[in-house]
Amino acid sequence: MATQTEHGSEIPSKSPVLMIDLRSDTVTRPTPAMRTAMAAAEVGDDVYGEDPTVNLLEASAARIFGREAALFVPTGTMGNQIAIKVHTQPGQEIVCETRAHIVDWEMAMAAAFSGCQLRPVFAERGILSWKQIESAVKQVSTHQAGTGLISLENTHNLAGGTVTPLSVLGEIWHGAREYGIPVHLDGARIFNASVALRTPVAELTSGFNTVMFCLSKGLCAPVGSMLVGSRKTIERARIVRKALGGGMRQAGVLAAAGLIALEEMPKRLHEDHANARLLAETLAEMPQVELDLGAVQTNIVIFALKQAGKAQELKERLKLRGVLCGTAGRNSIRLVTHHDVDRAACEMAAKIITEEIARL
Amino acid sequence: MATQTEHGSEIPSKSPVLMIDLRSDTVTRPTPAMRTAMAAAEVGDDVYGEDPTVNLLEASAARIFGREAALFVPTGTMGNQIAIKVHTQPGQEIVCETRAHIVDWEMAMAAAFSGCQLRPVFAERGILSWKQIESAVKQVSTHQAGTGLISLENTHNLAGGTVTPLSVLGEIWHGAREYGIPVHLDGARIFNASVALRTPVAELTSGFNTVMFCLSKGLCAPVGSMLVGSRKTIERARIVRKALGGGMRQAGVLAAAGLIALEEMPKRLHEDHANARLLAETLAEMPQVELDLGAVQTNIVIFALKQAGKAQELKERLKLRGVLCGTAGRNSIRLVTHHDVDRAACEMAAKIITEEIARL
Amino acid sequence: MATQTEHGSEIPSKSPVLMIDLRSDTVTRPTPAMRTAMAAAEVGDDVYGEDPTVNLLEASAARIFGREAALFVPTGTMGNQIAIKVHTQPGQEIVCETRAHIVDWEMAMAAAFSGCQLRPVFAERGILSWKQIESAVKQVSTHQAGTGLISLENTHNLAGGTVTPLSVLGEIWHGAREYGIPVHLDGARIFNASVALRTPVAELTSGFNTVMFCLSKGLCAPVGSMLVGSRKTIERARIVRKALGGGMRQAGVLAAAGLIALEEMPKRLHEDHANARLLAETLAEMPQVELDLGAVQTNIVIFALKQAGKAQELKERLKLRGVLCGTAGRNSIRLVTHHDVDRAACEMAAKIITEEIARL
Amino acid sequence: MATQTEHGSEIPSKSPVLMIDLRSDTVTRPTPAMRTAMAAAEVGDDVYGEDPTVNLLEASAARIFGREAALFVPTGTMGNQIAIKVHTQPGQEIVCETRAHIVDWEMAMAAAFSGCQLRPVFAERGILSWKQIESAVKQVSTHQAGTGLISLENTHNLAGGTVTPLSVLGEIWHGAREYGIPVHLDGARIFNASVALRTPVAELTSGFNTVMFCLSKGLCAPVGSMLVGSRKTIERARIVRKALGGGMRQAGVLAAAGLIALEEMPKRLHEDHANARLLAETLAEMPQVELDLGAVQTNIVIFALKQAGKAQELKERLKLRGVLCGTAGRNSIRLVTHHDVDRAACEMAAKIITEEIARL
Repeated sequence: MATQTEHGSEIPSKSPVLMIDLRSDTVTRPTPAMRTAMAAAEVGDDVYGEDPTVNLLEASAARIFGREAALFVPTGTMGNQIAIKVHTQPGQEIVCETRAHIVDWEMAMAAAFSGCQLRPVFAERGILSWKQIESAVKQVSTHQAGTGLISLENTHNLAGGTVTPLSVLGEIWHGAREYGIPVHLDGARIFNASVALRTPVAELTSGFNTVMFCLSKGLCAPVGSMLVGSRKTIERARIVRKALGGGMRQAGVLAAAGLIALEEMPKRLHEDHANARLLAETLAEMPQVELDLGAVQTNIVIFALKQAGKAQELKERLKLRGVLCGTAGRNSIRLVTHHDVDRAACEMAAKIITEEIARL
Repeated sequence: MATQTEHGSEIPSKSPVLMIDLRSDTVTRPTPAMRTAMAAAEVGDDVYGEDPTVNLLEASAARIFGREAALFVPTGTMGNQIAIKVHTQPGQEIVCETRAHIVDWEMAMAAAFSGCQLRPVFAERGILSWKQIESAVKQVSTHQAGTGLISLENTHNLAGGTVTPLSVLGEIWHGAREYGIPVHLDGARIFNASVALRTPVAELTSGFNTVMFCLSKGLCAPVGSMLVGSRKTIERARIVRKALGGGMRQAGVLAAAGLIALEEMPKRLHEDHANARLLAETLAEMPQVELDLGAVQTNIVIFALKQAGKAQELKERLKLRGVLCGTAGRNSIRLVTHHDVDRAACEMAAKIITEEIARL
Repeated sequence: MATQTEHGSEIPSKSPVLMIDLRSDTVTRPTPAMRTAMAAAEVGDDVYGEDPTVNLLEASAARIFGREAALFVPTGTMGNQIAIKVHTQPGQEIVCETRAHIVDWEMAMAAAFSGCQLRPVFAERGILSWKQIESAVKQVSTHQAGTGLISLENTHNLAGGTVTPLSVLGEIWHGAREYGIPVHLDGARIFNASVALRTPVAELTSGFNTVMFCLSKGLCAPVGSMLVGSRKTIERARIVRKALGGGMRQAGVLAAAGLIALEEMPKRLHEDHANARLLAETLAEMPQVELDLGAVQTNIVIFALKQAGKAQELKERLKLRGVLCGTAGRNSIRLVTHHDVDRAACEMAAKIITEEIARL
Repeated sequence: MATQTEHGSEIPSKSPVLMIDLRSDTVTRPTPAMRTAMAAAEVGDDVYGEDPTVNLLEASAARIFGREAALFVPTGTMGNQIAIKVHTQPGQEIVCETRAHIVDWEMAMAAAFSGCQLRPVFAERGILSWKQIESAVKQVSTHQAGTGLISLENTHNLAGGTVTPLSVLGEIWHGAREYGIPVHLDGARIFNASVALRTPVAELTSGFNTVMFCLSKGLCAPVGSMLVGSRKTIERARIVRKALGGGMRQAGVLAAAGLIALEEMPKRLHEDHANARLLAETLAEMPQVELDLGAVQTNIVIFALKQAGKAQELKERLKLRGVLCGTAGRNSIRLVTHHDVDRAACEMAAKIITEEIARL
């Protein structure tokens, strides 16, 4: 198997590094600066609270999000599941959007670890309103389970990187507070939302009880996510992290990369958004393609092929040409732009994709 | 507060017994024959397997359903949750209809006890096809939870007592077997389905791995449901029953009533269906009412008031006139016919309900 | 009650009714008065809170134990497990005696349903002191799980029906309150303790947050136990009961027997104690037997055979002669006296047991 | 390594780096070679199985332990809890030693995540025999939970780093196989056991179904442990790792250090053992000290002060003089030797500790 760079030279299949990998921004590799920082990191035993680099990262995250405290966790899934555990009791329900990450991609852990039932509500472009949420909220009785948590996702990954605006969030925060129900944000890509809305993350998340965000993905750290919240909540989260096996020892080597991710990398996310726009606009012009340009708001592009059942075939053809993508169901393709695929690579990808769609 | 019987005599409010109670068939009281049987029941310690009346009931249920074994349980909820536990592993998904009893009325126990996530699929009149189910079935991977169980409900309570025909079931049994996924039936009212379809319960449930059905509800036993299946499955179910605190001692007093429920009471369920039909046809003629007569297939009638938000008010007005009913959302009323409300009482109820709707 | 001759052959194996059954007081059958009450019981749908007999039983239990509220449950196991659920969070520890019923006979449900780890502490005769308990109490940290509950058992079944005196309980209640840890009583046989200590159950349980006691066992009801506590706790317990599948419909048929068990049957428990004493004193005189007479405080007798590994053989020999007993390990036998084995039968049993021990 | 004088005042409290830290071998920092390797590591997205360095580490671990497959996990706790999950069903029991890490230091997760009850058995020096284990094994019935797993620990941390010899293990493996019960090894320090017994880890663990071992602790990697077993078991383990939030992305940065830990660092563990011996022999000579020299088998030294209740005071005095240690109860002190405390530092520590004990 061979594939092409933009210069047309052959790439051996053993070098996935040189592929144009648009499957997800999770594939980003640490930058040279991150590698240097990892090698030089001052470390200690973080289970004893003695890793100075982790402590610095947690303090920085708390400051940037305007919170009392933050916790470093190995993955976004762990961050979300810790939040669910901390906010709920077994036998409660969690209101979320039908395509939320916690519904489809976290191994049923809301049930398996926290004993909670998801109560999914479908929303156009994944943007839940308070009215929709309220209709799914229940009081506990001897007949029915009660709602223990509302969980949102911003940007909403499976809905195509869509952004929930501050005004919609404000209504939800207000409504949830009236009911006394905590609200968690799966903000794996909250910095993408922040860039798209030109609103600082602290403002965009001020009404959530907890926020999880990822240092990996668009921010390029090799490993790690953060959970931010009140001091009391994060203390409990630290206990749950230990239980889940996330209490790492000299985690400072990861935190050193995380600090750069947190402080430097958000600045360049607008480039990924512009690249996604480029891909989307090119594809939207094709008669074979259905694509809602209004839904392309950050670094994710989802489009459907009008010819049914062709997504898998297109994915395989693109791989042969050196472009990796994901599918979303039998008819749709998902592209995610990120640091490791620059403008030129995106232009090349757009060209290859349009060529291959035309050949289907 | 006072109310009227059909003869017009006054009933003190302390005698709910004399109300026309159409809230649910769960309110049925044991018949005189049942009471006599309970008083005379031969009993032993069922946890040791020594209660002869329980043993007889379990043998009868197994025979009637054409199965190797059966288990007496105190409630239908326990029967369903035992089945879920026996068929699944924590972290799996359960495909079921959106309005299934296990989704809304079993206290999130699929999550809280079995650690499983529900994967609800909406179906018209609650009748899932294999095609709909198959689209929700997933293989476990390092990214996604897999499907561990398919659970159906026949008749489907919240969809209005609708009946899934044998041909639809046959396709589901076949499809599930191909995937190696067990199928459970919440057959709380399977005898109603059997009567409506003129098909013996053994035939109507032959492809399910387990079937739960209730001796209470339409069959009038005061307490108790059954789970039937293979010997091996029921052995495991017996262990789970003990864990849930359902291993009762001299349960023969309940089983004695259950035997009459199982053997005598299905014969008269067609009366309840006829009464439901009477109510439905009367109400369907009113211009203020929306009612899908085709969905009234057994002993449940659900109808909507065209005037929005009036269901609660109508329920309260009816209570003042001695008719108890349930609501289904803000606009709909639910009526359930049963042994303790005879033809005359249903005619009276129809009269009162139409009068009160007219006055809204 | 008739039993067999020493030849052991006159009892057909199909008539366990005629055996002298000293395996457990769980085998007691409902009295004629109970059967009459069950047949005549006024009933309603208890899930709606409308069963007048259940309501009366719950009010009586609350009054007798000096509590705000009580809940009828189908089994003692369910009562204990509801209490554990209501008092704890997953990931906590429960301090209890090593041989407690919740350790060995409740199917690991403290872990499987409540997610809690037992922290067993051995005590002579099963009587835990506050000092012993305190040494096992832990504060939660990022390194260790914290204690969520202390659970006692009075009388202590597997320690031989031993009784914890009020003074010892008082220290535990005081100590636990200082730590803010709730204390539950598995009082399956609390009326036996009350009789032995000549102390009303209300006084003997006043410092527990919840008390479970059984209407079956020595009190002879066919089915049922109660959980008593504060109104708020019992409200939560009612929700957990529904989740576990213990929300029975016309449970008044059982409650009618329960009322007699609660109000009439404690009066005669001293007879069972005297019968246990008779058995114990007879056996203690045998040179083949090791028996701590001081530990025979209520209706349970546990004795060891000095000849190792002979318990099972003796049990089988006794069965052939019409006496049923239990084993406790490889060397020990357990006898439980109760309503259905009268003085004469106990005298006969003592004779048979001594004869068979002599023949070993 | 420089340390402080006996005046204890020259060490600023902000420099824990300069302390002689004998609290645990978890405090070891990555070596320069590890840091270099981390900076240069080839990485990919390990959730997609595409991180070449992680793949290499997993292959190496499998080879060294003579197994089909291995899995990289962020912590030993996660490795143990994954193993428990993979081997058990909720409602089962796990036989282990009373002071095992999974009993006291894993946040009750056997219960909270796997729904299993621990069945602890005390053994001298923590060395369980098959006879002791067998006495705690149970068959599931409708009365009792069954045993789902046997879990050992070698070396046994809280028993003082003691080593279970191969002959004892052989009997356990054989016995467990007869019962069909899987056996897991918490081998956090299995390389220490291997060095002490002069037996390769593959031989020392051949009969276990799964083995967890740590790359951190004595082997000095900053983060990470491994679980090894059959291909099928590790496939399931990979799914559970994702569920627990341990599916890290570019984990190759950690695996690069882990490879050095695995392949280079076991060679020097005998130095830590010699240093522990030095400390133990010095302390054993003091009349104020109780120390079982026979139990000092690897890199852990636990000793008791004959003067009761003085452990905490000694710990604080030692800290002032620049020596960090742990306590084990109110009377005992625990010292752990490791890579970051060399011979000279251990000699210095021995001197300081004896001086301070003399002053108590």
